[in-house]
Amino acid sequence: MVIDFRPVLFIIGVLTSTFGPLLLLCALVDLAAGNPDWQTFVITAMLVMGCGVLLSVAHWGAPLKLSLRQGFMLTVLSWVALSLVGALPLYFSDYGISFTDAVFESVSGITTTGSTVLVGLDDMAPGLLMWRGLLNWVGGLGVIAMGIILLPFLRISGMQLFKMESSDVGNKATARIVDMVRQIAFVYVGFTAASVMLLLLGGVSFLDAVVHSFAAIATGGFSTHDASIGWFQSYYVEAVLVTGMLIGSLTFPLMIQVFHGRPRLLFTDEQTVFYLKLIAFVVFVVSFWRIASTDEEPLAIIWSSLFNIVSVISTTGFVSEDYVSWGAFPETVFIMITLFGGCTGSTSGGLKAFRLLILLKVMHNQLLTRLQPHRVVRVTYGDRVVDDEVIRSISAFVWMTLFAVGVFTVLLSSTGLDFVTSLSSVMQAIANVGPGIGPVVGPAGNFSSLPDLAKWVLSFCMLLGRLEIVVVIVVLLPSYWDR
Amino acid sequence: MVIDFRPVLFIIGVLTSTFGPLLLLCALVDLAAGNPDWQTFVITAMLVMGCGVLLSVAHWGAPLKLSLRQGFMLTVLSWVALSLVGALPLYFSDYGISFTDAVFESVSGITTTGSTVLVGLDDMAPGLLMWRGLLNWVGGLGVIAMGIILLPFLRISGMQLFKMESSDVGNKATARIVDMVRQIAFVYVGFTAASVMLLLLGGVSFLDAVVHSFAAIATGGFSTHDASIGWFQSYYVEAVLVTGMLIGSLTFPLMIQVFHGRPRLLFTDEQTVFYLKLIAFVVFVVSFWRIASTDEEPLAIIWSSLFNIVSVISTTGFVSEDYVSWGAFPETVFIMITLFGGCTGSTSGGLKAFRLLILLKVMHNQLLTRLQPHRVVRVTYGDRVVDDEVIRSISAFVWMTLFAVGVFTVLLSSTGLDFVTSLSSVMQAIANVGPGIGPVVGPAGNFSSLPDLAKWVLSFCMLLGRLEIVVVIVVLLPSYWDR
Ligand SMILES: [K+]
Ligand SMILES: [K+]
Repeated sequence: MVIDFRPVLFIIGVLTSTFGPLLLLCALVDLAAGNPDWQTFVITAMLVMGCGVLLSVAHWGAPLKLSLRQGFMLTVLSWVALSLVGALPLYFSDYGISFTDAVFESVSGITTTGSTVLVGLDDMAPGLLMWRGLLNWVGGLGVIAMGIILLPFLRISGMQLFKMESSDVGNKATARIVDMVRQIAFVYVGFTAASVMLLLLGGVSFLDAVVHSFAAIATGGFSTHDASIGWFQSYYVEAVLVTGMLIGSLTFPLMIQVFHGRPRLLFTDEQTVFYLKLIAFVVFVVSFWRIASTDEEPLAIIWSSLFNIVSVISTTGFVSEDYVSWGAFPETVFIMITLFGGCTGSTSGGLKAFRLLILLKVMHNQLLTRLQPHRVVRVTYGDRVVDDEVIRSISAFVWMTLFAVGVFTVLLSSTGLDFVTSLSSVMQAIANVGPGIGPVVGPAGNFSSLPDLAKWVLSFCMLLGRLEIVVVIVVLLPSYWDR
Repeated sequence: MVIDFRPVLFIIGVLTSTFGPLLLLCALVDLAAGNPDWQTFVITAMLVMGCGVLLSVAHWGAPLKLSLRQGFMLTVLSWVALSLVGALPLYFSDYGISFTDAVFESVSGITTTGSTVLVGLDDMAPGLLMWRGLLNWVGGLGVIAMGIILLPFLRISGMQLFKMESSDVGNKATARIVDMVRQIAFVYVGFTAASVMLLLLGGVSFLDAVVHSFAAIATGGFSTHDASIGWFQSYYVEAVLVTGMLIGSLTFPLMIQVFHGRPRLLFTDEQTVFYLKLIAFVVFVVSFWRIASTDEEPLAIIWSSLFNIVSVISTTGFVSEDYVSWGAFPETVFIMITLFGGCTGSTSGGLKAFRLLILLKVMHNQLLTRLQPHRVVRVTYGDRVVDDEVIRSISAFVWMTLFAVGVFTVLLSSTGLDFVTSLSSVMQAIANVGPGIGPVVGPAGNFSSLPDLAKWVLSFCMLLGRLEIVVVIVVLLPSYWDR
């Protein structure tokens, strides 16, 4: 059986076309700033829309009901295609960005990772900075959509547990999905707008307000300054952005219910509560250690711990201080929390609070049944029983994540990078966080000095992590192409 | 229900008493060398035998059929008690070893970890060096016995798969277990004797030959030289010991079958084949990288890679060269393989080839069933189907290992140790390997300079890893003490 890729290519054509108007928006930004770069954006927009429309028209009329195989391919190809499209304005710009760097930056943007290979952001054309922000923002919306529609359908990484809510078959279900996506988009835009307003009120420039709001809600982490949020030196800006990052890492379908008059859900939803407690715990431990071992102002310590820990656990990757310089203990904690991630159905990456919670419950059950061999203990989540298939799926996802971290860390270190740089780079890429650890890729550094091979490996890791690993490997299996 | 610990204490009394003759053996060694330390050993022996016999007599006549709860407590208490007993001659010696150091060294010896806090081994009394070797050797035998009798009975870490072979209930089964332990002890002594002979033939001194043979077969790794095996500068010695380490990390029940006229089993047993292939693969990759990036003699590179990689994967921890100085890539590989471990039913620690293999199969099955949701794929091992209970048990064991690595790495770094030192120390302790990575605890260093708190944490980790983690946590659960 040859797999019919026509509907996949049709959808990718449509998605690609939507980048046209976004590119034109950046052209407008550059035009308004009197920057000649606007012409690059217009040409790229024409090119992208042309190709996208051509691709759609060429595969017009294909049946749009996707099979499993088509679903997997669509998920992989759409992220790859949009990453390449996103790289074009960077590659065509006047900053001499290499093809490798352009692809790295674009993948990093659209997967909401936020690692950067660009140095001198503060002096760059506003259109290009806006484009990076848009990649984060559009990527974030794509992540939510993928998480609530495609992953449950493909039964990936335990997301099938959320299938009954949003991904049943039939027309009624489709209508409900469309309605939910519409509502989520509305909420997403709303939160972004609120964040922009608050930043403008705080005296932040328009471009900075927009790009940082994009990057916060999308848990993307791209900034317009090399020093990231540290540039502002403002508690107010940090407070707005820490709220944005937190919101971006919460479950959006849940947020819709909250807006439909059920605000208590935020404090009763098991994942959300666990996630917030986890953050509180980590902030407490790091603050405690720092207060005990330095002379800094306790409140300043707690605040900077809170900001940067929320930034990493939510997988945003904003940096307000060089936290690697806080000492060995915070450094170790920051490496350990890199893979955690936010909530499912959010814009964040990583393993996610839901899966960490289920794994803790599975471990606890195992311990209980050691003493009572015939006792059957079920894993529950909220008011439901989590069946074995979901647990197996979650386990496999986490194994594969750790396996990928191991393999790619070894691969990266073969290019001469030290262990900590290799490990933290791969971890942050797979969890779509942004900064790594150490003098090169740490919060005070960036990825520009890495060898090209390392940049390609990390680009692959960012996509791998964003696609919950399993999706990518399935498409690479021989049995995917058999029959 | 109060748990009846009488049979547990009776058995521990018996086990403790057996250390008396071993201590007297060390007294003889010191006496023969004209070292006054022999008196310390005699006094300690009297003390230990006295206490052991008293403990046994006090709990004489308790029914010896153990319940699950008693089994867990016996497993934990016997290792703790023997660790403390093992520390006595070190603490009482003339070398000013602190209580912390004595306990660390003893735990490290008896769990066959082989990390050392002693500096100046080359000039130490032969009795004390022999004592360290004996701790390794006796510990190794204890590990095999625990692995084939207690862990299947307690259904820990997937070992229940091997239950039918060796741990059924009933008198006939008991007789079979006793017979198997007898045969294993015979094989264990035989291999050790062979190794001693070969080393003596190679011109190695008697003490060195015995202690290193003990440490190789037990995958313990204690040496009589600060420079470990690097001191000998002899391919012959390395060849004998690399064979010893490999044998120590293979399944002993399998070895018995091999001696009963089924030698082909060594090349058909799934775990053994996977384990040997894994070693070959890692040796190939590291050798390839080193040959490509240095000017050293290729054969010398392959040999030193083989020796030190076998040493780490078998969890022995002998060192023939400072492999951290080989570069970033080998360093990263050495960290990654620290948790691997040898085969089940051997003297080695770590996750073990069997579990890595099952996890790879589980991941592969998950990938296959993504495309065919209704296909049922069973995990097989050899000619059997591995049931879900075993897979859950293996998963939980590996999760808890990784969880423990995370928690204790953070804890260790709170004492001021850097990330790599903390991580590698904890990993090697939990996997009972021996050396860590980095300038302090790496192959060229040792654990003497670590703060006391770190030494206690690592001592706990060594026991935790040796007891497959679950055993320790079960005893610490409130529900263990309930009812
Ligand atoms: K990010
Ligand atoms: K060892």
